[in-house]
Amino acid sequence: MSENVAALQAGDVAELMSAIGRRARAAARAIATASAQRKNDALEAMADALVASRQAILDANAIDMAAGSKSGLTDALLDRLKLTDARIADMAAGLRAIAALPDPVNEVIAAWDRPNGLHIERVRTPLGVIGVIFESRPNVTADAGGLCLKSGNAAILRGGSDSWHSTRAIHACLSKGLEAAGLPADAIQIVPTTDRAAVGEMLRGLGGNIDVIVPRGGRSLVERVQNEARVPVFAHLEGLCHVYIDASARLDIAIEVTLNSKMRRTGVCGSAETLLVDRACAATHLVPVLDALSAAGCEIRGSREVCEAFPAAIAATEKDWETEYLAPIVAVKLVDGVDGAIDHIGKWSSHHTEAIIAEDTAAVEKFFAEIDSAILLHNASTQFADGGEFGMGAEIGIATGKMHARGPVGVEQLTSFNYRVRGSGQIRP
Amino acid sequence: MSENVAALQAGDVAELMSAIGRRARAAARAIATASAQRKNDALEAMADALVASRQAILDANAIDMAAGSKSGLTDALLDRLKLTDARIADMAAGLRAIAALPDPVNEVIAAWDRPNGLHIERVRTPLGVIGVIFESRPNVTADAGGLCLKSGNAAILRGGSDSWHSTRAIHACLSKGLEAAGLPADAIQIVPTTDRAAVGEMLRGLGGNIDVIVPRGGRSLVERVQNEARVPVFAHLEGLCHVYIDASARLDIAIEVTLNSKMRRTGVCGSAETLLVDRACAATHLVPVLDALSAAGCEIRGSREVCEAFPAAIAATEKDWETEYLAPIVAVKLVDGVDGAIDHIGKWSSHHTEAIIAEDTAAVEKFFAEIDSAILLHNASTQFADGGEFGMGAEIGIATGKMHARGPVGVEQLTSFNYRVRGSGQIRP
Repeated sequence: MSENVAALQAGDVAELMSAIGRRARAAARAIATASAQRKNDALEAMADALVASRQAILDANAIDMAAGSKSGLTDALLDRLKLTDARIADMAAGLRAIAALPDPVNEVIAAWDRPNGLHIERVRTPLGVIGVIFESRPNVTADAGGLCLKSGNAAILRGGSDSWHSTRAIHACLSKGLEAAGLPADAIQIVPTTDRAAVGEMLRGLGGNIDVIVPRGGRSLVERVQNEARVPVFAHLEGLCHVYIDASARLDIAIEVTLNSKMRRTGVCGSAETLLVDRACAATHLVPVLDALSAAGCEIRGSREVCEAFPAAIAATEKDWETEYLAPIVAVKLVDGVDGAIDHIGKWSSHHTEAIIAEDTAAVEKFFAEIDSAILLHNASTQFADGGEFGMGAEIGIATGKMHARGPVGVEQLTSFNYRVRGSGQIRP
Repeated sequence: MSENVAALQAGDVAELMSAIGRRARAAARAIATASAQRKNDALEAMADALVASRQAILDANAIDMAAGSKSGLTDALLDRLKLTDARIADMAAGLRAIAALPDPVNEVIAAWDRPNGLHIERVRTPLGVIGVIFESRPNVTADAGGLCLKSGNAAILRGGSDSWHSTRAIHACLSKGLEAAGLPADAIQIVPTTDRAAVGEMLRGLGGNIDVIVPRGGRSLVERVQNEARVPVFAHLEGLCHVYIDASARLDIAIEVTLNSKMRRTGVCGSAETLLVDRACAATHLVPVLDALSAAGCEIRGSREVCEAFPAAIAATEKDWETEYLAPIVAVKLVDGVDGAIDHIGKWSSHHTEAIIAEDTAAVEKFFAEIDSAILLHNASTQFADGGEFGMGAEIGIATGKMHARGPVGVEQLTSFNYRVRGSGQIRP
């Protein structure tokens, strides 16, 4: 850890962060009106710099990995922290993909004429300054910085102490890219201290100089951010996603989609945690689906009826319905048709993603109309809950709140809008 | 004031409000899935009830007016409080106009296909429960209640003590309308106490049972709401609107639009407060525009140069640039072209509404691109800053924040969205 960190006192952190906020606001004004070409030039130059600085990034990452091993980080966290040639290439490709997206700023979202001749346009505008607080994944530096720049916003990035050196090495490449394109380096700043007081300052909004906070990390980080933030937050606390198999479901689809929803990757927020099976098809669908899950290494925790039908299942308790396992474990329950599924999901869902497997259109429409989650899927895996899979190019995260952004947060969701009205001397009677 | 108010203790208020929140959440679920027809039937029935209850509403209003006179309300406040046959007819017409709007709920905002065959729709959904805190205008009861219902939300309305009896009489009509259409009465509740602690409870979100707060009232109310609310707020603290006259402006348009922007109604948030005149046309445009304002009874507060050119002007101080007069007073300053205007507005604007009078397209585009306010107008009066004038049918208020809603808040802005994905068994590789 660099010496400037140790030297910081509490008052220093407040002052440091305040200055970062002011610089971000000033840079945001420049970035808001930067041309699409200039922003894309910066993104391409950042990607070039990442590739050119490959060795420096790997060296920095090696320091973090050694420290992480020594301090006893779990294998999962070490895996998130680790950078390789392939991961650096992915970051660079990600920045180039962001450059290739249509520019959201100044896009006319809607336009109409009024009887008095006024022509009104609703036009996308940047949000301003976006604060991103993340934990061990150093690649968030490049992804978040790139998305904020593309959407015309300044970014303040605060990485975890685990990825301290890696984050700084990546950030140096972003700064080079901004510089190469003639954009202010302050458009993407990293917080130059791992002091947790800096997070507190960000959550209070740096005196009006942060417009929204995006936390990327585990439950405790997101919980702290949601509880303490005095500015809007785009986040999901958890992804307690459900798969419901209706009596009308095709068995092959039920098996494949459930298996993929649960087991493709168990540690992502879009992985399914609870399986609801229509009592009306339990006799035909339950055991084959559980067999497939079990064969793939998934632990089954079932309600009484499920355990009776599938003796390998462990008895579920009420706690299972509210648990995001992020592991090869699934809670399974029988319900009375789509209404039963809607009731269960209404009670336990984290409003992230839910899927229905069915051929009965009426059941699907009811499921879609009555469940208030960010993403609802019919006959498709919950693991599609991802901005890239939605065709948004990239995402800074997934939001389960209902204000402003919901679901995958891509460049469009990082913008606001205003109204531009063109007249010829109209006055209001 | 009714006896149940006097009887309330602090703990009672918390309990009362908590119960209101729970009932609102339950009603929100029913309203979210109510058909457009049923909601419109309710709105029409509400309008009928208002007309039928005309005398009861006028009687209730007479009690409030008498109390208001006695307690020394200003004439302006008494005017806001007063209901007449015409104002009751306006409220009823407003509800029928809301019924006639397209239903925003379930509207497909965007739809696209993915290469893997997934069909993705972004669909409007209700926000949930909307808390409206208003002061003396009793008609907000009908307007806000109607807009919330149309957008599929439940509403908790908290009127001021001045309009206590009027609000209750109007609310009784809304309840009748809901009942007539078979919708839950809890979909539109009024807070049955004028205890200010109830406002505090609403600002804390009633245990997660309020999704957004809309304050309608004076600066002190909005300030309190913005400072204390732990839930999102749609509001504007003030409308410090600017008119900029560019050297390329047509003089007739400059005179007419400035006069209308300032003087049509001086007490509304879209009225202009500051006039900026391009130094390059001061010799030709300044005096004629100020003559017109002055002749209409407007006090002119000018910078030194303005006072020299227009001796009737009073010397402005820095305080004038930051003052929302809401009165026939205008602050006037010369600036160096559109860049000077952008600088001044960037420093002093409340980000509500700004107008440019110009024939030079480049100046207009610069003004539109570089000023970050909710509404920007070219050659048109700032007094068009209104949801009705924008063709939105009605508005619950105007927001100057950049999150979710901005500018006039109509039924669309009272909705969220989710993603509905239709597949045929797709799994993620």
